[in-house]
Amino acid sequence: MAATNEIDSLDKLISSTLTGKELEEYNRIHYGRTDHHELQITKNTIELANNNNFEISAYDFPAKYEETRKSRIVKVGIIQHSIVLPTDSKITEQKSSIFEKIGVIISAAASEGVNIICLQEAWNMPFAFCTREKHPWCEFAEPVNGPSTVFLAELATKYSMVIVSPILERDEVHGDTIWNTAVVINEFGKVIGKHRKNHIPRVGDFNESTYYFEGNTGHPVFDTTYGKIAINICYGRHHPLNWLMFGINGAEIVFNPSATVAGLSEHLWGVEARNAAIANSYFTCAINRVGTEVFPNEFTSADGKPAHKDFGHFYGSSYVTAPDGARTPSLSRVKDGLLIAQMDLNLCRQIKDKWGFTMTQRLDLYAKSLQKAAEIDYEPQVVKSQL
Amino acid sequence: MAATNEIDSLDKLISSTLTGKELEEYNRIHYGRTDHHELQITKNTIELANNNNFEISAYDFPAKYEETRKSRIVKVGIIQHSIVLPTDSKITEQKSSIFEKIGVIISAAASEGVNIICLQEAWNMPFAFCTREKHPWCEFAEPVNGPSTVFLAELATKYSMVIVSPILERDEVHGDTIWNTAVVINEFGKVIGKHRKNHIPRVGDFNESTYYFEGNTGHPVFDTTYGKIAINICYGRHHPLNWLMFGINGAEIVFNPSATVAGLSEHLWGVEARNAAIANSYFTCAINRVGTEVFPNEFTSADGKPAHKDFGHFYGSSYVTAPDGARTPSLSRVKDGLLIAQMDLNLCRQIKDKWGFTMTQRLDLYAKSLQKAAEIDYEPQVVKSQL
Repeated sequence: MAATNEIDSLDKLISSTLTGKELEEYNRIHYGRTDHHELQITKNTIELANNNNFEISAYDFPAKYEETRKSRIVKVGIIQHSIVLPTDSKITEQKSSIFEKIGVIISAAASEGVNIICLQEAWNMPFAFCTREKHPWCEFAEPVNGPSTVFLAELATKYSMVIVSPILERDEVHGDTIWNTAVVINEFGKVIGKHRKNHIPRVGDFNESTYYFEGNTGHPVFDTTYGKIAINICYGRHHPLNWLMFGINGAEIVFNPSATVAGLSEHLWGVEARNAAIANSYFTCAINRVGTEVFPNEFTSADGKPAHKDFGHFYGSSYVTAPDGARTPSLSRVKDGLLIAQMDLNLCRQIKDKWGFTMTQRLDLYAKSLQKAAEIDYEPQVVKSQL
Repeated sequence: MAATNEIDSLDKLISSTLTGKELEEYNRIHYGRTDHHELQITKNTIELANNNNFEISAYDFPAKYEETRKSRIVKVGIIQHSIVLPTDSKITEQKSSIFEKIGVIISAAASEGVNIICLQEAWNMPFAFCTREKHPWCEFAEPVNGPSTVFLAELATKYSMVIVSPILERDEVHGDTIWNTAVVINEFGKVIGKHRKNHIPRVGDFNESTYYFEGNTGHPVFDTTYGKIAINICYGRHHPLNWLMFGINGAEIVFNPSATVAGLSEHLWGVEARNAAIANSYFTCAINRVGTEVFPNEFTSADGKPAHKDFGHFYGSSYVTAPDGARTPSLSRVKDGLLIAQMDLNLCRQIKDKWGFTMTQRLDLYAKSLQKAAEIDYEPQVVKSQL
């Protein structure tokens, strides 16, 4: 599914072009550290990745030693993948072919000791919202305890992993309503909760408001065995207030499972999730699907261009940022991938102590300001120029 | 004052290393456009810059044609500079030597038709807060109508410019209190208002809370002849809520006059002001001083290292981001500079229409959430894991 005329990644381009002091300075200024702290991956896992045509990389984010707290080291894995079958194949076969692919990648993560996995947005289906067609795409929706959860719960139990599964949810109890939802499955295979996407795009081919509403589950943080996690689904990454509330509720790792294409957002991708990690002193994991998805019927994109059948190139480029703003190189722009980040979660509080963003944030001031600003007859604070 | 072992800029390094399709892809993915839209600078101005050892660059940010609104094209200039005399020179001479330097750079901006200028934080003095000494550094503070304002008001009138002047303010009316303040002078030389820094750092050598308090002027937007502008001073760039309120109050251009050093923040610099431009659909102008400042008495930096006399390297790298997330290359890391950005302010609303961040931001939800979160006995929304 990968477009072949695409470059693999800027990160690989730079690291294969610059050398010596120049590369070191690039790494320091751009990534926030001169050395990427790569972790070794076992030979078997590398073979598995090669045989199944996915990329694998692993990085370490250590924290300072503390006398009064133990290190809280966790291994997080994020997965980006393309769909497997053409979008006009049978729905059950489209799903099961993705299950098969994901099963292999999760087994690779398990063999590297990963504790928490997050998949991309609507991971078990093509991102069909460009079509604005309800049929057959709504058939991909599942209740929270549907087949995708059953499939992942088994892997979660087998590998003692927490798995975050972003799906199209069918809420059968409330009028068969559809939501964009992340299901959180713990290491015993139990669904401990869900989060529904808070902010819904109406931009370019992202006609998602045609399918589902703004989420009604607030900003939950899931206190798992391996750390406090939250999920900011896709377009929510453009909203600093969304990131903020997950931080206020105590998140240490916030996943951003996404689906976004090159023509629209690629220059924003490295900025937003990274800024959120910095502003909120937590880890962020930005995950984007990969490849080009072609649909059976043509559709227009509200951009004056002729009708067409593909969504453009999902550019992958998944990456992780630490609370101190240091980040990993991205996964490929064109290939499935597993990125592993080993994190000492003590780093979150250490960075809060260092930078003091929570201490200095003046939450009471902004609570008042936003309350006023949300009023219908709000008068902005404007100073007029004068002669 | 420039440290000579520093590289000039990542931007120049990349553009002189990559070529062809690779450079184009780098530019598209990193800067947000394949072409920087450089504007021509007149020969006379280039000569002036060369003779006075400052860099000058200029870029264009056009907007789409609209039938019902005229283009609103404005030229903005941002200036980064090092101090001129050693920090143990007479205060009046330190100031007047900086005035002289700034006078030349502003004249260059005028000859290129710049309408709005913003200077760096505490532009008329060394950034002495690393010392924690009150004497003699507090002597640099001035009332809003002090000598620096008088100096700039004359240039504002002469060149019909709006000038933003970030200074250490002495509030003689309220107990001789000191503030970190941006004074806004209109094109008739009149002070139309001021904004005091909302968030004060306590990190590394930035002992600013020793000198002044959190600002009490809210989030004013100054409705000038050339556009609606606001100022987010230095450490306020780490606070998304600060950026947000300027946007809510209608800002089209937000300046971020700063003073920050390489060891602390350089990997965050390209992220934060740029993210703010994206999230709030306005232009941001990030300005950082340049050079290494050495002080008469030694001081410690609370990092376990021995006492020393310099603040580290202020890395310049000033840049401008448009509401669509496209950005200019940075000015030098080591040299004084003037960066000119021609902007069609219509782009702000065009991007709001395209991306819909204000429509989808759910301000009422967050007003309530923040109000709760600011309460002393707030209970975070946490979902516990279960067997």
